[in-house]
Amino acid sequence: MRLVAGWAQEAGLEPTLDPFGNLWALPAGFDGPVVTAGSHVDTVPDGGRYDGALGTVLGLELAHDLPACGLLVCVAEEAPRFGAGTIGSRLLAGTVAPADLDGFRDAGGVSATDAQATYLEMLAELPSCDPALERIRAHAEIHVAQRRTLREIGVVSRVAAPRRLEVVVTGEAGHSGEVSMAERHDALAAAAELVLAVEAAARHEAADTVATVGTLTVSPGAMSVVPGQATLGIDARSTSAAALDRLEAAVRARAAAIAAARSVQTDVRLVRGGSPTELDRKLVASALSAAGGLGVPAVETWSGAGHDAQHLAALIPTLLLFVPLHGGESHTPFEDASMDEILAATAIAAEVLGGV
Amino acid sequence: MRLVAGWAQEAGLEPTLDPFGNLWALPAGFDGPVVTAGSHVDTVPDGGRYDGALGTVLGLELAHDLPACGLLVCVAEEAPRFGAGTIGSRLLAGTVAPADLDGFRDAGGVSATDAQATYLEMLAELPSCDPALERIRAHAEIHVAQRRTLREIGVVSRVAAPRRLEVVVTGEAGHSGEVSMAERHDALAAAAELVLAVEAAARHEAADTVATVGTLTVSPGAMSVVPGQATLGIDARSTSAAALDRLEAAVRARAAAIAAARSVQTDVRLVRGGSPTELDRKLVASALSAAGGLGVPAVETWSGAGHDAQHLAALIPTLLLFVPLHGGESHTPFEDASMDEILAATAIAAEVLGGV
Repeated sequence: MRLVAGWAQEAGLEPTLDPFGNLWALPAGFDGPVVTAGSHVDTVPDGGRYDGALGTVLGLELAHDLPACGLLVCVAEEAPRFGAGTIGSRLLAGTVAPADLDGFRDAGGVSATDAQATYLEMLAELPSCDPALERIRAHAEIHVAQRRTLREIGVVSRVAAPRRLEVVVTGEAGHSGEVSMAERHDALAAAAELVLAVEAAARHEAADTVATVGTLTVSPGAMSVVPGQATLGIDARSTSAAALDRLEAAVRARAAAIAAARSVQTDVRLVRGGSPTELDRKLVASALSAAGGLGVPAVETWSGAGHDAQHLAALIPTLLLFVPLHGGESHTPFEDASMDEILAATAIAAEVLGGV
Repeated sequence: MRLVAGWAQEAGLEPTLDPFGNLWALPAGFDGPVVTAGSHVDTVPDGGRYDGALGTVLGLELAHDLPACGLLVCVAEEAPRFGAGTIGSRLLAGTVAPADLDGFRDAGGVSATDAQATYLEMLAELPSCDPALERIRAHAEIHVAQRRTLREIGVVSRVAAPRRLEVVVTGEAGHSGEVSMAERHDALAAAAELVLAVEAAARHEAADTVATVGTLTVSPGAMSVVPGQATLGIDARSTSAAALDRLEAAVRARAAAIAAARSVQTDVRLVRGGSPTELDRKLVASALSAAGGLGVPAVETWSGAGHDAQHLAALIPTLLLFVPLHGGESHTPFEDASMDEILAATAIAAEVLGGV
């Protein structure tokens, strides 16, 4: 954030920080209506070099090229430390309240409230600002695509809702050499059944519906102890609310059945709900038309991944463009994109933002 | 170890440390034949208060009560940090070589060689010694039982061999919202199948054969990323070498089948082999006879758990006695034992050691 704030200053913008930690860098010495562009600066562990960094750098490019265009970089878009994401934009949109941050805890028990305070202190050199929402006429986020089947510039009209569940399986710890198989209430074996049940339930749905167990921790986690507890993090995504409901119901039913069959306890907690989002139709049409005019292949599409754009869309007309992925998965070190397509997406965003 | 060395000194023993870090506290100013008793001072994460501590304290009691009896406390009997155990006694027995310690790494990549150096430095105040094996006529270890079905003092005649395997499952990481179910190579889902296969294979064997997946780590381990890698630690135990061979073969076959079905890679590595151990028949007979003379109910039994005694048995006639477990599993905070049975086991050990 400090690096980007420095670049923004060099580009004639005025970097400021809102109370949530989002970076607003609007044209210096100007207080009329503006447009903004930008993305995020964080990524997941072992993530790629494009993720939010691409849209942040292109936000600076757009601010440089367009009159009355500023940069908006949201904080904590990826917050795997807290099993959450898009925290900065959700705080802006009011769908996460500042008080909710106390409920996000990292593995060491540190709350997001404390992490935010540390972060704000590290950026204390930046002037503070109120979110300048009333001045923003439109916002654009360019992001590398995260679905490899998308082969053209993607103009996103729908964003899937992530539904996140945490399941704590409590069995009975015991010595791995002395508790017979018949006497066991192995929390990891129960969790393994649930991992496979999540996979089976998602395979049963359409292709835009997925579910993942991305985190699993075992306690006490020693070679010589039958696991007493296992905690799973489940991430389900769909552009269909009904499909998400079916997935959640399937997880809850299977967790109860496994608990009964193995005499263990399974506690299922909804960590995050949410509804699929429709993005601004006019901006979608304008982007498709701009692509046509520029001779750039582009397609209307959906996003399975969450983005700040989907939350900002509740506040500002928001455009989300995808640059096709080349030669590797997103969120991995092999994430790659082509410079031609990056420039094409930037040209489309410039036309859309310039035209509002 | 420092605390116990201090107690040993107060009891008129001479605490010294062998090059491996085992504590030898033999009667001061005496260089004739001796007997020893003792256990270990470490336990597993969230372990109980008896584990090795009981036999260590009783070793001091026996050294106090018997002429020419010293204390032997082995280091790193529990070493879950390194996915291993009974390191000190195996170094003594030569079944682990000092050079092998480089192969044991903790989660942070620190080798057991470096951990041992740090440990030895922390105990630098103790005089060093060579293992006084040629002076030891017999050794006794009293340990809390770790099988709750054992309801009398147990005189152990066989110790199960732990066979430990590590399986690394390598799939393909990707965005949890953007990689469709059909395209996935989810390392955790593959690992979950293997966890259930290990359980099923062990259930197929007799009651003295068990297998446990006690550790499972997921990489990168974020809510929004399909797991790219999962590492499992498997601990199989049996007093039958044939049963261990069958279990290992089943794990290898299932790992290969899962790899083929899911297009993932599964690398199975034998971390620790080993054969079931027979303990000294004369000491077993002597302990059962002493129990009869004292009117204490005792039974010849086997151990599913590993103990230093099974490795020391290759060097010295060794007795292993179990004190029944009361009201909770071993290796958990609820581990409990009765004082009457603790004193009875100590009286049996005193008679056996006093009679050799």
